[in-house]
Amino acid sequence: MKISLKKKILDKNEECSLQNSAFFADNNTFCVNVISSPGSGKTTILSRTIGDLKDRLKIGVIEGDIRTDTDAKKIRSTGAAAVQIETKGACHLSAEQVTGALGAIGAADLDIVFVENVGNLVCPSAFDLGEQARTVVLSLPEGDDKPIKYPGTFAGADVLLINKMDLADVVDFDLDRVINHISTLKPDIQIFQVSAKTGEGMDAWYDWLMKRADANQPKED
Amino acid sequence: MKISLKKKILDKNEECSLQNSAFFADNNTFCVNVISSPGSGKTTILSRTIGDLKDRLKIGVIEGDIRTDTDAKKIRSTGAAAVQIETKGACHLSAEQVTGALGAIGAADLDIVFVENVGNLVCPSAFDLGEQARTVVLSLPEGDDKPIKYPGTFAGADVLLINKMDLADVVDFDLDRVINHISTLKPDIQIFQVSAKTGEGMDAWYDWLMKRADANQPKED
Repeated sequence: MKISLKKKILDKNEECSLQNSAFFADNNTFCVNVISSPGSGKTTILSRTIGDLKDRLKIGVIEGDIRTDTDAKKIRSTGAAAVQIETKGACHLSAEQVTGALGAIGAADLDIVFVENVGNLVCPSAFDLGEQARTVVLSLPEGDDKPIKYPGTFAGADVLLINKMDLADVVDFDLDRVINHISTLKPDIQIFQVSAKTGEGMDAWYDWLMKRADANQPKED
Repeated sequence: MKISLKKKILDKNEECSLQNSAFFADNNTFCVNVISSPGSGKTTILSRTIGDLKDRLKIGVIEGDIRTDTDAKKIRSTGAAAVQIETKGACHLSAEQVTGALGAIGAADLDIVFVENVGNLVCPSAFDLGEQARTVVLSLPEGDDKPIKYPGTFAGADVLLINKMDLADVVDFDLDRVINHISTLKPDIQIFQVSAKTGEGMDAWYDWLMKRADANQPKED
């Protein structure tokens, strides 16, 4: 008799990530992991998205920050549920931290759960949280060289939101350079040019979100 | 007879950091570790600083990036020596990597070595490179909440450069909020408000650099 010992030993993050993934599938909840540099506008994007879609989708947010609950407070001011995770110095959220927040946020009853990761363009991309989609935000003042310098993060994304388009006239940013480079890193990435401040371009992002959240619902016969 | 076993066991980073520190002291080289989010303007600040001070100080740069040598090329275009370290995914430079670059850059003959760390407001602050001073850059578009959200990085800095002051009229940024909060985190921090793009405010930063580089030189009798 041969006994196979090939079973993969999962680390704690992989284990919790699979658990989260199963939870989202069971509850028809669409989970989006949002990653970017500090200050690219993640919280402003999510606040505006929640405000504009609140009559159509039930949305909640899991906030990751080194310190403070200021982002969760901003999200709660929109009326949405938000849970703050303080990482106390850690540079990314873990799948286990997300597992722990799902109950508090009432994720089973939501259409979309956004996980706003710690502001960091490097570390969060190496940790799967069990999400169905990953969105990277790049804001114009950060510069058009970021996909070249941080390729792993951009190659792992399903959506790129190019934010702060309202600053296009005052900062140097070559949109074509970014779009061309991204298309070599991740040919099927969805790119939306937006300003969360003015609302410019947000509708296309909303359409994508609604389509994906809808595809997540059980099909009627 | 009592034998003391209290000798601290140093990890590799501490060991190399002490070695770098001794090297800088022996060679009267002033080393500044520059930390910030991606896109806050570190390379532009260093390029302008080198251009403006090249007749007064010999400056070299050790560049840390996940990928590419674009920043080192920009620095070399100023005429200064630059060594690129590609971290291949790692989120910060290590003291050992800096040790390895000191020869290539001719650090023993320089007045100032800048180490431009990987763009990341979290991880680099936990790794001492043996530098004599640490500068954090915060650019206006990143927002005035960053010292509150990333306190460890700001509390560990000797200098805060508030960059992209040329965007003061087009982005929301409460300077007083930042200065007040920083003064509780690190009361003796030096704060300079600059625009590396226009040159605004750079002279005060140069004065600080020249004083510190000068204090590093052996005293004449």
